[in-house]
Amino acid sequence: MAAFHCIQALRFPSRTHVFFPIGDQNRYNIINKKQRGFLVFASADKKSDKELYLKSKVETLLDSVKWDGKGFAVGIAQNIDTGAILMQGFVNRDALATTISSQKATFYSRSRSALWTKGETSKNFINVHDIYLDCDRDSIIYLGKPDGPTCHTGSETCYYTSVPDLLENKQVDGNKLALTTLYSLETIISQRKAELALPQTGKPSWTKRLLLDHDLLCSKIREEADELCRTLEENEDQARTASEMGDVLYHAMVLMAVKGVKIEEVLEVLRKRFFQSGIEEKRSRGQAS
Amino acid sequence: MAAFHCIQALRFPSRTHVFFPIGDQNRYNIINKKQRGFLVFASADKKSDKELYLKSKVETLLDSVKWDGKGFAVGIAQNIDTGAILMQGFVNRDALATTISSQKATFYSRSRSALWTKGETSKNFINVHDIYLDCDRDSIIYLGKPDGPTCHTGSETCYYTSVPDLLENKQVDGNKLALTTLYSLETIISQRKAELALPQTGKPSWTKRLLLDHDLLCSKIREEADELCRTLEENEDQARTASEMGDVLYHAMVLMAVKGVKIEEVLEVLRKRFFQSGIEEKRSRGQAS
Repeated sequence: MAAFHCIQALRFPSRTHVFFPIGDQNRYNIINKKQRGFLVFASADKKSDKELYLKSKVETLLDSVKWDGKGFAVGIAQNIDTGAILMQGFVNRDALATTISSQKATFYSRSRSALWTKGETSKNFINVHDIYLDCDRDSIIYLGKPDGPTCHTGSETCYYTSVPDLLENKQVDGNKLALTTLYSLETIISQRKAELALPQTGKPSWTKRLLLDHDLLCSKIREEADELCRTLEENEDQARTASEMGDVLYHAMVLMAVKGVKIEEVLEVLRKRFFQSGIEEKRSRGQAS
Repeated sequence: MAAFHCIQALRFPSRTHVFFPIGDQNRYNIINKKQRGFLVFASADKKSDKELYLKSKVETLLDSVKWDGKGFAVGIAQNIDTGAILMQGFVNRDALATTISSQKATFYSRSRSALWTKGETSKNFINVHDIYLDCDRDSIIYLGKPDGPTCHTGSETCYYTSVPDLLENKQVDGNKLALTTLYSLETIISQRKAELALPQTGKPSWTKRLLLDHDLLCSKIREEADELCRTLEENEDQARTASEMGDVLYHAMVLMAVKGVKIEEVLEVLRKRFFQSGIEEKRSRGQAS
């Protein structure tokens, strides 16, 4: 995970913005310090030389993108913590240059024929931590953290229309986001929690029992953690480790649902601990001590 | 998470493929059974009526997509377990219809002017479990499980070129994929494991100590699981729960690295347990008993 957080943006009067990293804790504390190639340059004597060099680097990068006949590439904004695809738009040369310098996901609005920084109206910016090009260099991922819901409808992401649901005439209460496995499971556990407010019939599900009985829940979490450890201690096979880790995750997620904590918050903790706050081990040792 | 797994594809002689769900365990066992609107139709008397109805539903859906002037929408293939964006291509009417019926991610190759099912040459198909349209209906996510590396270069995904690395002239050994937080952490732990084979200098990092000392690692996992439980038992605040869950995840991931198990495998276990194999509670109770 590269990161743009501490990259110092230099805005040039020309249409191209350039930047250089100063005190970039994010990138360098997790990377072999000998690899700080660009920082070497940042210590050059003349600022104007640096600026020229940097401007030329950005221009070379922009030249290397395979813009289509109209000057566009596809831009996809993805949540750096959850992996959720937030939105997709089109990016031109200026939009990419602006995103690099501002670290806010910027697109070109084809309907308004203008640069468009997501959030300029709603204030729900997407704070870009990293940018990736695909193998053909005509598709771009903005890996970032959204300040709030991305979709103009107020939905967390723009992808809430399921094709199978459309084909089955299924009515869905509220938006049903495109969710990957962990977040689908989180949603199901939340639904079970919400259902507890309704009159209960029949035997409660296992998830509901765990949600209601905190002693049971905690004893299961401790038991599953122990079983995960025993797959190592007793040299059990990999499938057993994966299965026990699944149990740990599921039961811990039920506890998080009880506490009202989202997985995204946990991932944010891990990102800040391991990638933004310096040296992973020091932090972790601090936590663990 | 909707799922296409058990949807019975019906291939029509016409260019449009239609399908209907038969015994769709995936969708229905995790959804209120009263919502099985489409299944009601599937019990209609005449097969031809059903086929006509289904064909018309798919045609209506295809009509609802906002195809651009050339008949394309953007298609993004995303790994259903990890959230990794695998590739991006363009989709036309036939490509979407084919994906719906075949459950293999299919695009339109603009360079070859032909339909292109990813994997038709490499056999690394992307098995589509769900399809989402965005709010504008001009962008499509194929949420699926790849059979192998997606990129023609052999890379797991097509996004392995980091813009910051390009701007910093950074040489990266091998591909450096666009990774979200959990997978960045997994990669770092793997790197620490790989570094253990090199001559060690200085005090080993915490991660390396855990990798080397399995008694320490297991005691930490049990301790962190206990601390997570205590955030519930002792009514600690949400931030504490998120932090302790981060500790549980990190230490459990070190154990997984020792065992050579990937997070993706754990998520696959959870997906199969909760979404593909029937009723979540029954399965979970089976595991927990």
